[in-house]
Amino acid sequence: MLSKNQIKIITGLQQKKYRKQHKMFFAEGIKVVQELLDSNVTLSHLYSEPGYFNGIPDNMITAVTEAELKKISALTTPQHCLALFEIPDEKPIPQNGLIVALDDVRDPGNLGTIIRLCDWFGIGTLVCSHECVDVYNPKVVQATMGSISRVNVVYTNLEEYLESSGQPVFGTFMDGANIYKENLPADGIIVLGNEANGISGGVGVRCTQRLSIPRFGNLQKTESLNVATAAAIILSEFRRG
Amino acid sequence: MLSKNQIKIITGLQQKKYRKQHKMFFAEGIKVVQELLDSNVTLSHLYSEPGYFNGIPDNMITAVTEAELKKISALTTPQHCLALFEIPDEKPIPQNGLIVALDDVRDPGNLGTIIRLCDWFGIGTLVCSHECVDVYNPKVVQATMGSISRVNVVYTNLEEYLESSGQPVFGTFMDGANIYKENLPADGIIVLGNEANGISGGVGVRCTQRLSIPRFGNLQKTESLNVATAAAIILSEFRRG
Repeated sequence: MLSKNQIKIITGLQQKKYRKQHKMFFAEGIKVVQELLDSNVTLSHLYSEPGYFNGIPDNMITAVTEAELKKISALTTPQHCLALFEIPDEKPIPQNGLIVALDDVRDPGNLGTIIRLCDWFGIGTLVCSHECVDVYNPKVVQATMGSISRVNVVYTNLEEYLESSGQPVFGTFMDGANIYKENLPADGIIVLGNEANGISGGVGVRCTQRLSIPRFGNLQKTESLNVATAAAIILSEFRRG
Repeated sequence: MLSKNQIKIITGLQQKKYRKQHKMFFAEGIKVVQELLDSNVTLSHLYSEPGYFNGIPDNMITAVTEAELKKISALTTPQHCLALFEIPDEKPIPQNGLIVALDDVRDPGNLGTIIRLCDWFGIGTLVCSHECVDVYNPKVVQATMGSISRVNVVYTNLEEYLESSGQPVFGTFMDGANIYKENLPADGIIVLGNEANGISGGVGVRCTQRLSIPRFGNLQKTESLNVATAAAIILSEFRRG
């Protein structure tokens, strides 16, 4: 059984201010929840239709019906379970290795996809400007498919971070050097920009190396790649060796 | 002014059967509509708030208010205009060059993103199995950002097409050869599979070359890449030379 107060708290977690206040976020769906349960993230409480999870202490799981799930879910069609987790503390940004930095990425699906890409390509830290969508937004959590537990996401003043890092900073620009011809190092910061406006001026001047992804269409003009597909190509280039 | 009958026809075009019946689809938003107007696609009628388009013959444009647009739009927030276009005839599939083939790709956003990628990488033909989402679905049209006018999308029996094509057929599989180490040709068919199940059995046996995108995460397991980000990496590899 779900109390009115529980429903209010859980649906409140769709908003950033309540996530911050309660230091909690939620995830839905067997696959995503299971991946988070298997990770270092701390479960706060699990609401599930019966029969999907084993080994959860009795005081941390509540059996719910599909109709009850509908009252707390952020999805159009609830996916059998919803789990509350504690928001983990941000870990420090490492001084070496590859790091991805996002400048004002607003779309939850794009952030989720980029986290999944970081996980695939072994990039443990994602630095976000304060303007980026919140990583614990339910749509971001769902889009990461569980990768969220394996990538440390840090929000910071991006310009100050780039200024002080001392590492090479790579950004993609229309007039950048062909990424396929460059020697790309194993250490550095890869900056990705806003969906509509690309990399902002203040961040752009802090890019020490300007790259571009060549376009192969002949006559015609595709204006730009989506930021998540551009990220896929750039990370693949850095890692392929 | 919009008549009741116009509203009924336009909203009907959100469904595939009425698009087929009327041989029409629609697009929304200044950027997407302008790209289609600049292409070979034939405009049927444009509904727009005043002041956004020039040079459209009087009998092909109707001035509408935001409130009227809301009645015909498929978007939560209408984007100033909605244009009806004739569905162009499918062109034949070429016998050479690179071709992308989709096996049961269901998500409109994924199909739209893959069309945009084909356009970027100069791939003029996309072959879809009959199970794929319809390319004139409004969500697909929006996700292509206008690229839809530059890529010929053909629906066919994919197994028969691959069987009869005589070209090398590339698919990605967990046990495939490292894509970064293979010599990839300028002619061939690149197959991408379903979001949940990958490439189906009947299509898989017709792949003549099995590839994989290596994972760089060390301990952990990202199960798979999203089909659109996988497409970005694969097309980039084929084109980079």
